[in-house]
Amino acid sequence: MTDIKAALRAQRIETPSWAYGNSGTRFKVFAQPGVPRDPYEKLADAAQVHACTGIAPTVALHIPWDKVDDYADLARHARELGVGIGAINSNVFQDDDYKLGSVTHPDPRVRRKATGHLLECVDIMDATGSDTLKLWFSDGINYPGQDDLRARQDRLAESLAEVYDRLGEGQRFLLEYKLFEPAFYATDVPDWGTAYAHCVRLGPKAQVVVDTGHHAPGTNIEFIVAFLLREGKLGGFDFNSRFYADDDLMVGAADPFQLFRIMYEVIRGGGFTDEVAFMLDQCHNIEPKIPGQIRSVMNVQEATAKALLVDRDALAAAQAAGDVLGANAVLMDAYNTDVRPLLAGLREEMGLAPDPMAAYAGSGYFEKIAAERVGGQQAGWGA
Amino acid sequence: MTDIKAALRAQRIETPSWAYGNSGTRFKVFAQPGVPRDPYEKLADAAQVHACTGIAPTVALHIPWDKVDDYADLARHARELGVGIGAINSNVFQDDDYKLGSVTHPDPRVRRKATGHLLECVDIMDATGSDTLKLWFSDGINYPGQDDLRARQDRLAESLAEVYDRLGEGQRFLLEYKLFEPAFYATDVPDWGTAYAHCVRLGPKAQVVVDTGHHAPGTNIEFIVAFLLREGKLGGFDFNSRFYADDDLMVGAADPFQLFRIMYEVIRGGGFTDEVAFMLDQCHNIEPKIPGQIRSVMNVQEATAKALLVDRDALAAAQAAGDVLGANAVLMDAYNTDVRPLLAGLREEMGLAPDPMAAYAGSGYFEKIAAERVGGQQAGWGA
Amino acid sequence: MTDIKAALRAQRIETPSWAYGNSGTRFKVFAQPGVPRDPYEKLADAAQVHACTGIAPTVALHIPWDKVDDYADLARHARELGVGIGAINSNVFQDDDYKLGSVTHPDPRVRRKATGHLLECVDIMDATGSDTLKLWFSDGINYPGQDDLRARQDRLAESLAEVYDRLGEGQRFLLEYKLFEPAFYATDVPDWGTAYAHCVRLGPKAQVVVDTGHHAPGTNIEFIVAFLLREGKLGGFDFNSRFYADDDLMVGAADPFQLFRIMYEVIRGGGFTDEVAFMLDQCHNIEPKIPGQIRSVMNVQEATAKALLVDRDALAAAQAAGDVLGANAVLMDAYNTDVRPLLAGLREEMGLAPDPMAAYAGSGYFEKIAAERVGGQQAGWGA
Amino acid sequence: MTDIKAALRAQRIETPSWAYGNSGTRFKVFAQPGVPRDPYEKLADAAQVHACTGIAPTVALHIPWDKVDDYADLARHARELGVGIGAINSNVFQDDDYKLGSVTHPDPRVRRKATGHLLECVDIMDATGSDTLKLWFSDGINYPGQDDLRARQDRLAESLAEVYDRLGEGQRFLLEYKLFEPAFYATDVPDWGTAYAHCVRLGPKAQVVVDTGHHAPGTNIEFIVAFLLREGKLGGFDFNSRFYADDDLMVGAADPFQLFRIMYEVIRGGGFTDEVAFMLDQCHNIEPKIPGQIRSVMNVQEATAKALLVDRDALAAAQAAGDVLGANAVLMDAYNTDVRPLLAGLREEMGLAPDPMAAYAGSGYFEKIAAERVGGQQAGWGA
Repeated sequence: MTDIKAALRAQRIETPSWAYGNSGTRFKVFAQPGVPRDPYEKLADAAQVHACTGIAPTVALHIPWDKVDDYADLARHARELGVGIGAINSNVFQDDDYKLGSVTHPDPRVRRKATGHLLECVDIMDATGSDTLKLWFSDGINYPGQDDLRARQDRLAESLAEVYDRLGEGQRFLLEYKLFEPAFYATDVPDWGTAYAHCVRLGPKAQVVVDTGHHAPGTNIEFIVAFLLREGKLGGFDFNSRFYADDDLMVGAADPFQLFRIMYEVIRGGGFTDEVAFMLDQCHNIEPKIPGQIRSVMNVQEATAKALLVDRDALAAAQAAGDVLGANAVLMDAYNTDVRPLLAGLREEMGLAPDPMAAYAGSGYFEKIAAERVGGQQAGWGA
Repeated sequence: MTDIKAALRAQRIETPSWAYGNSGTRFKVFAQPGVPRDPYEKLADAAQVHACTGIAPTVALHIPWDKVDDYADLARHARELGVGIGAINSNVFQDDDYKLGSVTHPDPRVRRKATGHLLECVDIMDATGSDTLKLWFSDGINYPGQDDLRARQDRLAESLAEVYDRLGEGQRFLLEYKLFEPAFYATDVPDWGTAYAHCVRLGPKAQVVVDTGHHAPGTNIEFIVAFLLREGKLGGFDFNSRFYADDDLMVGAADPFQLFRIMYEVIRGGGFTDEVAFMLDQCHNIEPKIPGQIRSVMNVQEATAKALLVDRDALAAAQAAGDVLGANAVLMDAYNTDVRPLLAGLREEMGLAPDPMAAYAGSGYFEKIAAERVGGQQAGWGA
Repeated sequence: MTDIKAALRAQRIETPSWAYGNSGTRFKVFAQPGVPRDPYEKLADAAQVHACTGIAPTVALHIPWDKVDDYADLARHARELGVGIGAINSNVFQDDDYKLGSVTHPDPRVRRKATGHLLECVDIMDATGSDTLKLWFSDGINYPGQDDLRARQDRLAESLAEVYDRLGEGQRFLLEYKLFEPAFYATDVPDWGTAYAHCVRLGPKAQVVVDTGHHAPGTNIEFIVAFLLREGKLGGFDFNSRFYADDDLMVGAADPFQLFRIMYEVIRGGGFTDEVAFMLDQCHNIEPKIPGQIRSVMNVQEATAKALLVDRDALAAAQAAGDVLGANAVLMDAYNTDVRPLLAGLREEMGLAPDPMAAYAGSGYFEKIAAERVGGQQAGWGA
Repeated sequence: MTDIKAALRAQRIETPSWAYGNSGTRFKVFAQPGVPRDPYEKLADAAQVHACTGIAPTVALHIPWDKVDDYADLARHARELGVGIGAINSNVFQDDDYKLGSVTHPDPRVRRKATGHLLECVDIMDATGSDTLKLWFSDGINYPGQDDLRARQDRLAESLAEVYDRLGEGQRFLLEYKLFEPAFYATDVPDWGTAYAHCVRLGPKAQVVVDTGHHAPGTNIEFIVAFLLREGKLGGFDFNSRFYADDDLMVGAADPFQLFRIMYEVIRGGGFTDEVAFMLDQCHNIEPKIPGQIRSVMNVQEATAKALLVDRDALAAAQAAGDVLGANAVLMDAYNTDVRPLLAGLREEMGLAPDPMAAYAGSGYFEKIAAERVGGQQAGWGA
């Protein structure tokens, strides 16, 4: 139990700056009171999540949504709030030029512009001290024949190679894959195999990031996790949950058992280290954002605690004996355990309130920002 | 062949006003040149589709996107352009009040407001002479427990009954179902069974509309079509196509064989009449809008022509004999036929150019609107 | 808590005779030691499940797999073992005549034969005292055009009506639906809407049974449960679980949270009565069968206990207030509770061992049947 | 057109010996008249398919279903019939030892046995002159925790390496992947990424085979084809079609447009050579087997003809110009062409009847085998 508590105490879950801004669907973005107007305010909100949970000390930025004149100043601001800058997320899907693609666009001018943006993100890594660049490409096509599937891979490879070469010491990029949306017929990095193949060609600074909402129905995500860890190519997670498509619901909300199985494979595969980044990537379309992030951090933490509770010796013995029900039962015993008392105790040992949701609700922070953040332009995707 | 041509000549496909405005995904709406600024300009664009295809004489409106002060004037404008007003589409998903639902919202005030909007749409039917109200509800919940699934059905039934009672002589409403989006955990009208059950309780003026993009993976849509026709409850189609979710691509683009099978069941089930409305409901996110609509109308027409070509006597004989390959071959013979020469001939008989896409491209219309429609606010979803 | 225990004590979960025989996939049926050779031995095994769990007092039969000369004798045998005969399951998919369908077959001779079998099953109900007939039809087609979708509905309706009219006082039938398999293009009762529409036409003795493995990906099963309960048409469950298709794994093994949500809707909708039958329908292809059934009964029981723990007043208050996270949290609090101590205590109050799996393992029953049941033909599907 | 005809004349499609035997689902195998009793009779049937189509000159074997004492004699028999032996398919899923896996089984004894079978298949390659070994593993687990996902990869890699090393000059193996079935929770080679990663580590004699029915819903198969060709790792196809899962229907029956898109990517990617094997892998559960194969060969041929008709210069120009509708139209023009007259003419040039289905029906072959093949044990899967 001491080991488990130590492991849980060391866990780090990164929250994304964009979770604090407005988000929605193509049908409607519902604004919420108190939403930040700029990256500084987003960091302040993220700091509340860390203050309540104790395990969310970094914040991912999204460029250009979090563009500022002075990144060093932003990083200093973060430190003052008790948090740090995490991964830099590039955005090559919102400029009018990117209607038919970014780094895979048929027009070399557009590709140049897109790659330029990615290189600029590495500059921002240098400026903020971030060591991770997250690359998600919305690139793809909507209609068969619209563009050449293979030529787009050539263009993608060329851009990735240029960005890879720009990475400095201790820097890496994570390549994200996604089945569909916003491209509907073919996406240029649709699955882990595609991301993996590109990363293998590039070298050790290129790794795959698993967004838990980006798979076809029926995909076994924990298998992918186990496989990528075996290959040394799992760079991290974009956590969220979904029932159907890329719903971007709170992680663990749709299928907590799946989250547990994923965390078990992370631990079993030696991925519970600083190497594999646990990041949230969610949209709180209808629920309040800061509590949505707190709940999500707690959900990952609870799944981790359960995964740490698995009696691995008993499991290995049952597996070796071909005891199907016995092996399954070892796993389920851990899953069925109520770990909330354990985590409440851990928080108290860490000097935190035992219930982060209640702590936040009682803090008065929401009332404060709702009153203060009046006027200006609320942050959002600007879609 | 004379019969087939007569049937094709009589076909009516309705285009939606919103297809002419901008649309996109939650990630980005890419604006296009020449996009209408108001419902009058949308009707003008729709009239071009009809002028080129000869079979798209009506235009569906969407309220409030097509709100005008004087609907009689709008209808007159349409008539002058050679088209008419088709179905009125309600919108109870974009007001801030509807964040947690419209007619199924827990708060009676919001439900009242939503039902009021639906009743207003019937007023607009009266004013425009439209005989069809299309009801799509984005209502649903994102998280288990968020609201009571059954109570929401009670509220839905109550609102539908009120709207049903308001319908006048010769008016009907079509209830649309959709698996998910924008609600991600549970949608209040998720499938045809739910829509059907409500319509059966209400009576003959309530029918189900099948949006071809609103089903779970693996659903056999033509079965639903056949079943609803057998029950007298198929009111019409919202045509589009998709590879994954509700992609809203051009109908027939993703799976032309499926579209053919659907049209075959419509014909076989006696639904190829004015009773069953053939409507398009699509988003031309990256392709030009008017040609996108023309192509879509042509795709439905081609599928219809192929379905009409099925040798139904030969099919029935093979089916009765249990000749699996023979029966399938009868269907495939029709599908594999290239009907484009037939349709080109039909168009010439109708006084149209044989190739609608070329006719539009050569008309100069696009160049005209791109030059003229400068300034103002382009129409869109306003999400 | 007293109420919860009383409810759990009253719960009845029916196990299926075929779960005790061999089963497999089209690739291989792996035989297991100790498998029953006849219906009498199946009942003996089922009695063990009841002896260990205390809540599995009835056994479903499958005709002709469980055909015997004297059903009254079989029922008496069951009673002596401490169990009773549950639902009678018809089988119109394994005779060579049924290659292209049973009650929907194009040939009236085959339809007559199939309907005759269904009527014979009602005779067996009379003989055994069973009050429930379960109807699953594998009927469907593999290729577009193979047969007429609508004519098959007419034939289905005709057969169902004849069986319905044969039902005696206090008897009912449950109509099962299934997306696909063994028919691959179109199944004649593919979804709940189809089953519901037929049952509504027939009357109160016809109800829908929900097999939890028979849905398209992404289908919200608990919504269907809530809807059918509201309509008075939920007759029962065939419980099992699946990751992909109709995997027939142990219920609760693939998605325990889904099972909990289903049980919550059962309770919330007033379906936790004798009216709604909780039946297992599973294949233990690789795990031992009796423990597989015990584990499954326990999984349903645990999900039920959690669902009973939901604080419905708190939930209703949060829902009414539009408190998305609060309402979800009320549900999750119940789900996250470890109910195993509660259930162990309940079992001891009922005079049972606290751990049914351990009790069975220690009983020596398996060793006994493995030694005794040598020779003869092991029961199975005979596919 | 001359080039197209030459290409079509050179196409080679391999039929599988098991398509001529009985097959079915877990619910029922329906026997058919005239089914072969041994591999010699299977080859005779396959020779009919080649005689009627002119492009099916080889037959894949499945060991042990096609086990004979003298493989050289079997190969000589094939030659006399005008066909040759194609790929050797291994089977490590039907021995009782393989209940929990074959090469990934926890028990080294079972793994040794399984690998031994694979090596024996290479011996049969030597004896028959076959140059291709097809490896499909049903290995996987049904329940979370049942076995260690990562350890199973280690065992798989070890076995593959041993088989790889045994391959002789001019021999290769194709590694098949499959999402699920018969394993339901996790399959050890579930997707192309897994197969690809293993093949890359092994070297040039290991390639991936794409079974068109083995993907998750929504997967873009032609993307995988294009990607693997770009990587030099596409070894061939197991063609069939499906609506839902691994239905094993006739290729092109469920989605002919998808088959066309796949063939287009094969041609575009330089895969229309001897390097990429076009193999059928189907189950004719309810339709007659020889005509089922003939129709399937024709479906692949028609899709190939359409793909060859694509105006690639026009397509490239439209793609380069970002003309979404224009590029799509180029592709669709080819797809919408009725290529049956072209293929009928080609057959006549090749000295064949223009309509293979009619030619077979009129040949009297079926009546002959139905009369002669009486008694003995019909071939099948023996599941």
